[in-house]
Amino acid sequence: MTEYNVTVESTLMALLESKKYSTIKDILVTMNPSDVAAVFERMEQEKLPLLFRLLPKELAAETFVEMEPDDQELLITGFSDFELREVINELYVDDAVDIIEEMPANVVKRILAQSAPEMRKEINEILQYPENSAGSIMTTEYVSLRPTMTVEEAILRIRRTGVDKETIYTCYVTQDKTLIGFVTVKSLLLAQDDETLIEDMMETNVISVSTHTDQEQVAQMLSKYNFLALPVVDGEGRLVGIITFDDAMDVMVDEATEDMEIMGGMTPSDKTYLRSNAWDLFKHRIPWLLLLMISATFTGMIITGFENLLATQVVLTAFIPMLMDTGGNSGSQSSVTVIRAISLGELQFSDLLKVIWKEIKTAVLCGAVLAVACFAKIMLVDRLIMNNTDVSVTVAATVCLTMAATILVAKVIGCTLPICAKRLGFDPAVMASPFITTIVDAISLLVYFGVANMLLF
Amino acid sequence: MTEYNVTVESTLMALLESKKYSTIKDILVTMNPSDVAAVFERMEQEKLPLLFRLLPKELAAETFVEMEPDDQELLITGFSDFELREVINELYVDDAVDIIEEMPANVVKRILAQSAPEMRKEINEILQYPENSAGSIMTTEYVSLRPTMTVEEAILRIRRTGVDKETIYTCYVTQDKTLIGFVTVKSLLLAQDDETLIEDMMETNVISVSTHTDQEQVAQMLSKYNFLALPVVDGEGRLVGIITFDDAMDVMVDEATEDMEIMGGMTPSDKTYLRSNAWDLFKHRIPWLLLLMISATFTGMIITGFENLLATQVVLTAFIPMLMDTGGNSGSQSSVTVIRAISLGELQFSDLLKVIWKEIKTAVLCGAVLAVACFAKIMLVDRLIMNNTDVSVTVAATVCLTMAATILVAKVIGCTLPICAKRLGFDPAVMASPFITTIVDAISLLVYFGVANMLLF
Repeated sequence: MTEYNVTVESTLMALLESKKYSTIKDILVTMNPSDVAAVFERMEQEKLPLLFRLLPKELAAETFVEMEPDDQELLITGFSDFELREVINELYVDDAVDIIEEMPANVVKRILAQSAPEMRKEINEILQYPENSAGSIMTTEYVSLRPTMTVEEAILRIRRTGVDKETIYTCYVTQDKTLIGFVTVKSLLLAQDDETLIEDMMETNVISVSTHTDQEQVAQMLSKYNFLALPVVDGEGRLVGIITFDDAMDVMVDEATEDMEIMGGMTPSDKTYLRSNAWDLFKHRIPWLLLLMISATFTGMIITGFENLLATQVVLTAFIPMLMDTGGNSGSQSSVTVIRAISLGELQFSDLLKVIWKEIKTAVLCGAVLAVACFAKIMLVDRLIMNNTDVSVTVAATVCLTMAATILVAKVIGCTLPICAKRLGFDPAVMASPFITTIVDAISLLVYFGVANMLLF
Repeated sequence: MTEYNVTVESTLMALLESKKYSTIKDILVTMNPSDVAAVFERMEQEKLPLLFRLLPKELAAETFVEMEPDDQELLITGFSDFELREVINELYVDDAVDIIEEMPANVVKRILAQSAPEMRKEINEILQYPENSAGSIMTTEYVSLRPTMTVEEAILRIRRTGVDKETIYTCYVTQDKTLIGFVTVKSLLLAQDDETLIEDMMETNVISVSTHTDQEQVAQMLSKYNFLALPVVDGEGRLVGIITFDDAMDVMVDEATEDMEIMGGMTPSDKTYLRSNAWDLFKHRIPWLLLLMISATFTGMIITGFENLLATQVVLTAFIPMLMDTGGNSGSQSSVTVIRAISLGELQFSDLLKVIWKEIKTAVLCGAVLAVACFAKIMLVDRLIMNNTDVSVTVAATVCLTMAATILVAKVIGCTLPICAKRLGFDPAVMASPFITTIVDAISLLVYFGVANMLLF
């Protein structure tokens, strides 16, 4: 795919140089809006308005939706009121809302001023829902049917009103605005008798979400039930919108990216990597680095506290990095697994004890194997091959005992913290490796020096 | 959702105790197959065959698809040939293949023996494609149309053949089996004239994948273009199957989970967390822990090599954990960001220099801020508040210089390794934190002792 875009890109650039605008247009109209947007993003920004004006109305709107917010803003700023109106009124309501949410206040004002009255009303309604809620990502453009319609009437209604709907394939049946069922176009088309009433063929076991349901849960439900769309209802069970699978896919990708960023010790970012400059990256990375540097004061204090011990047994220092890394890795193995399971809706707070018990058993297995392997490695490599006479059996035992204990502590902390964070309403991903590393570091050092004090003196 | 399942679960258990089978059946038929499967999974395994036999044919097949492989195997083993035939022949081909891929050889043999001949042929064809390829996840049940059909004929064909198709909403137009275009049911229904020929209204700019395209790329494309389905063609451009959005969603979730597991230092697992026992977890976690323990030999060797330095300046030891953690965190910030960008198809090898340059600028910003903050913290906390007279300005300078250098090295390594791994055909996620931590640890220690040697003696 990329190869293709790169080639088209250079062709278009050459054509742009020689001002062959009609040829450019001929090429662009054969392309998919996502690809047009991808090509546009790699071109110089000042050429964008010119290129964009070559697109026919519908392709222009579809391409606009796929572009990055800063390019959208640039284009809007350059648009005449007429051009802006043309693009905005071609958009689906949920796409218009997505764009508006990224724009500065003055641009939002202009967009709303140029929207058709009905659309402006719908945009304003959706904008009132909290960020990341089902209400904020839904669209109000769905097909609704009455229970007393026949199959034939329903198909007629779809044919008459379907053109502006985000999906026509799942139609919702309402009575006094209350959602009472749904029918699919497949079932309408395959119905044996055109006179069958919708209420006699509709699926009444409707799964819906409320306007305040979290978007991550909506995406999970769409994925779990393999639905094309999920209906959104208000507090009184009235249908207010739908969320389609493509928006759910975007949510899933964004949420997974966000989880990974947080687990990697960054504050989440809306921008793609290529669009972020060094300053953006810096801003998202420095908070955790600072916090972790300061929290490392504790590990420093612990080591300072045992300075005398270390001065007499300098050999102990050599094993500190290994113990700390093993502890950190063990802890992040558990936390990453548990965080992902929480994200996928698999684990709840009520599973906590079950999870801890499983992690303890795993830690005992890992700890035993690693301690034995580590003992063998120390005696073989450090003692025999490198002939380090400071490395006594007691030192090796101290290291291995600490290692086993550290793994146990790390795994229990690693699985407990995310589940508790979720319970307290925090994002479990915050409890991933960087955070756990610091706690485990401190504990493993305390155990290390404690065991050393016991065994070596 | 979970609350609901838990309640239904306890109700069903009570009903099962008192053998109220018809009431159980009445409850189950109102439920969605995914929910039935979720409830079944939380019940005792020996009750499963009994419960499963209460389901009507279609719901039974749909529930079966949603269950975990070990429960599926248990059920199949208990099925009579007749029961097995009933379930298997209700399945879509791609679902049947998914199940077969998880079963032991003798179960596969029984499944194939009980499949209808046409289905067996299609299953065998799909089974030949490599794991994780588009061919292996596609289904052969799609609607194909001829270019010379009219809209009316096309709709008739859909009504006649649609019942067994995985989706009817996108229909593919073929000529001598070659894919030449597609039409959506929406465009057919909204067509002004029933006599319009398919070839005059079809979209000819078809985006398709080959049978060997990686499933992750397929999922990315479906998500990028917001398609309901993507056609799969063979080497000669002949249509052989389609992949629907719900399968793409599953692929996206699985691939993100796999990336996270690998980044967290584990070999990826097919089982969910609750389904994995301690032994499973152990097997997936021990390889990296062992490898990292052994690679930590290098950091140990470096410290041993500078034992004399450390013996005279024990205070230096106290800062080792902080330096190592900061290095590890900086490196994993870069690697996680870059790995995710690669997974989403955003970064290629050709971007390497651009990425490195961006990371260098970010590292300089982070390094400068952290070094200054760290200097202030050391002088204020360690020197003034804790009154540690060993902490001289020179020691603080040594620590801060090392920190800035470590961050630079960590960020450059963190962004370079995943991109190079991808280029060499490895999974970039393997190059995440645990691996980078070890390299960065060694380098930061070398820098630390090098700077100390220069400044302190």
